[in-house]
Amino acid sequence: MIRRLTLLGLGLLGGSVAKAARAEGLAREIVAVGRRRENLEPALRDGAVDRITTDVAEGVADSDFCILATPVATLASLLRDAWHAAPDDVVLTDVGSTKAAIVKTADDLGRVRPLAFIGAHPMAGSEKSGYAVSRPDLFKGALVILTPTDSSVPSALERVREFWRALGARVMILDPVAHDRAVAAISHLPHLVADALVDAVLRMNPRFLDIAAGGFKDTTRIAASNARVWREIFQENRAALGEALGAFRQALDDLDTLIATGDATAIELELDRIKRAREGVS
Amino acid sequence: MIRRLTLLGLGLLGGSVAKAARAEGLAREIVAVGRRRENLEPALRDGAVDRITTDVAEGVADSDFCILATPVATLASLLRDAWHAAPDDVVLTDVGSTKAAIVKTADDLGRVRPLAFIGAHPMAGSEKSGYAVSRPDLFKGALVILTPTDSSVPSALERVREFWRALGARVMILDPVAHDRAVAAISHLPHLVADALVDAVLRMNPRFLDIAAGGFKDTTRIAASNARVWREIFQENRAALGEALGAFRQALDDLDTLIATGDATAIELELDRIKRAREGVS
Repeated sequence: MIRRLTLLGLGLLGGSVAKAARAEGLAREIVAVGRRRENLEPALRDGAVDRITTDVAEGVADSDFCILATPVATLASLLRDAWHAAPDDVVLTDVGSTKAAIVKTADDLGRVRPLAFIGAHPMAGSEKSGYAVSRPDLFKGALVILTPTDSSVPSALERVREFWRALGARVMILDPVAHDRAVAAISHLPHLVADALVDAVLRMNPRFLDIAAGGFKDTTRIAASNARVWREIFQENRAALGEALGAFRQALDDLDTLIATGDATAIELELDRIKRAREGVS
Repeated sequence: MIRRLTLLGLGLLGGSVAKAARAEGLAREIVAVGRRRENLEPALRDGAVDRITTDVAEGVADSDFCILATPVATLASLLRDAWHAAPDDVVLTDVGSTKAAIVKTADDLGRVRPLAFIGAHPMAGSEKSGYAVSRPDLFKGALVILTPTDSSVPSALERVREFWRALGARVMILDPVAHDRAVAAISHLPHLVADALVDAVLRMNPRFLDIAAGGFKDTTRIAASNARVWREIFQENRAALGEALGAFRQALDDLDTLIATGDATAIELELDRIKRAREGVS
């Protein structure tokens, strides 16, 4: 049982954590910190949180479980502020989409003041954002990747793992750098590609969008996501995204070249190999 | 009321047309033609069709409304066979994903024996295929593009239009070449890109697929489609697909370059422009 759960940031993810933790009775008190009071008030009114503040130090005071849930670009400085104000027994964690940078920041901070930090990435986003779309069942069945390092406190890892399991998530452990490469491949690259697909149609003829059917809509759904959130992710994970983009360009060129050969059997073998790989994704 | 509706090909589309036409009572008799009797028998058993045959000439004899519903690569030769065997008052149409080639074939055949042909493309596919997944409501709310030419018989266009409307579809008229460019952009390109996305992950690390979340699944759903169907479409519409691929590569390069500049405001403006375009797709 968490004594005081602090959420730094109360958008889709932070709001959903608050609602889910409340629904599961995981914390005696839930505190939300945000830049603007008016953005936090709906959560106070609907009972998802018990207390709101715009002051990080006040929010993390006496907190034993503190989750950073702001956009990735602000995570490092927010972690520094929280690190200085949090009590010694706190477990700090986050919900950021990239992990190498924030884990390194925590390692650096830990050399000055040892505190328990476990990087976490719940893979349960949406093209929508904000507290208004948060929901208590967002993490049911979702995958949450934890990225502890050699210097992580085992009991803190256990608490974070149990927390997400209690919210209905499946938990996987990955090295922070391996995590960033993996999400570059299966999340950030598809996102960039979806953006480019929409833009390609706009370049050819915007009216072509009038006949867009289910395939196009599915393939480009994530292109309707929040621009700031994704600008930050693209920038934060640029190195791994660059690698994924290289693999993608090569794959696309190879398919294009293969189709140009006109070798029906070879093309079908290749498409079938890809089809079977995709079918293996549950 | 159609006297004898003939379906040449009884997969997802042909089967769904048969079931929908039966449900709406659009034809007194429905005949299905296929290469193998055993593939047609389920439709005879469940009452979607009244008669089955593996002989094209027998199937189109006395037919006044004949729909070609085989994969695109076989459409031209099938149209030739049907053209020679069909009665003078037939309306011939198809459900192929590309239109310029089949319309040209029909125009050529029409110079020897004038018959009414209207190219049609119901945009209601699926990554699944075969009669087993066909359903009578497949075309409800779907868009069907008709591609008549200057030489098309107006009354035939009207019959085909009314047929699809009776099946619950919305009908749009497009020039065959404009159609092929449009579907290259909003259907064939996304398909090729989805294939390349799956392959890019396989090239980086197939185990990354284990953490694939909703965004990846949506974006690559169509990569699980039938390999033969899509090999044929890619080959059939290669010119227009090449143009769309060029626009896509340029859009992707421009986004990549923009992200590399680190100009947060410019990146967000661009992502937001794309987001708004995508949101405009109903």
